[in-house]
Amino acid sequence: MNPGHENLHRFMNKTVRFTEADTGHLMALAKVVQLKKKEYLFREGEYARYVGYVNKGCLRYFHTDPKGEEHIIYFAQENWWIGDLDSFYSRKPTPYNLQALEPCELFAFSVETFDRLRSEVPAYEEFRKLAHARATAARLETMLSQRRQTAEERYLALLKKFPDIFQRVPQHYIASYLGIKPQSLSRIRKQLSDGSR
Amino acid sequence: MNPGHENLHRFMNKTVRFTEADTGHLMALAKVVQLKKKEYLFREGEYARYVGYVNKGCLRYFHTDPKGEEHIIYFAQENWWIGDLDSFYSRKPTPYNLQALEPCELFAFSVETFDRLRSEVPAYEEFRKLAHARATAARLETMLSQRRQTAEERYLALLKKFPDIFQRVPQHYIASYLGIKPQSLSRIRKQLSDGSR
Repeated sequence: MNPGHENLHRFMNKTVRFTEADTGHLMALAKVVQLKKKEYLFREGEYARYVGYVNKGCLRYFHTDPKGEEHIIYFAQENWWIGDLDSFYSRKPTPYNLQALEPCELFAFSVETFDRLRSEVPAYEEFRKLAHARATAARLETMLSQRRQTAEERYLALLKKFPDIFQRVPQHYIASYLGIKPQSLSRIRKQLSDGSR
Repeated sequence: MNPGHENLHRFMNKTVRFTEADTGHLMALAKVVQLKKKEYLFREGEYARYVGYVNKGCLRYFHTDPKGEEHIIYFAQENWWIGDLDSFYSRKPTPYNLQALEPCELFAFSVETFDRLRSEVPAYEEFRKLAHARATAARLETMLSQRRQTAEERYLALLKKFPDIFQRVPQHYIASYLGIKPQSLSRIRKQLSDGSR
């Protein structure tokens, strides 16, 4: 197997039995997309023509509101499947931006190649079914945690999911994701590091 | 066609071409479940063994946190597809409760009948693909609106989606969904009704 596809192969096998032939078939349909730091896979108002797998790098998915304020929905890193399926399938403009925070390598699919992947690789379709269920559960959990957790608790949950986030994502983006001011984030970090001494 | 299935038939045809034979096939696999007011389709800690379509009635989907406080995630009404897919497919306990707020009629599917529906009725699978994309988009929008909208804006958005909600859902549940106290909800309603005179 191409060593560049090992991550993907290993990752898919955590959820379903995904053979080397399945990985090969997937890669034959994929378009390898390189993004430079700060480059976008798609921007608000565009058609989100690709969904894809993050083989390398880290991105942010965000929306700019009518007042010009940015709202970060999530940070994606290696092994995430990303995209705006609603725009992708309905071919309408997306309200979101997907921007590289580091140089990224994605394995990307158009509607046509994605539909072929789903129908020609049954193990992939099975993966999607389970991954969709898990992702929905995770999103509900995020919604709940936004309502009931303190900023400090949300910060700790993010760190647990993404331990090296401060090495990879600018601090003001992390504050935006947590829905707090950068100064509040600094204060929380300081308090926690004082407390853990 | 059975007149009890007309809602479903009409609803599915808004998204995909869904023939009478498709509707008949779906109903042959469905289990018709009646819930009394306050009855549960599933409760926290149980396996959520059914997903289903709401043919009649209104329900709330909620989680109880460790402090005993209830957090309402959504209200479902006619034409919603509901369930906890994560628990459903992974057969692990759900952290959610799905409770009828009125007498309800659901067309419900077990994992086995649901998988048959998806493979035997291609139009249903196509519907799911598009509905999943739309639902994900709607959930992100809710997440965003929680962060940036005032309680009053969230209240108006809810009313738009669910105009007769005050006739069907107790006011303290609506307040819980909006993440505010019942008194604040009364105040918002009063202000808006004063303002619109």
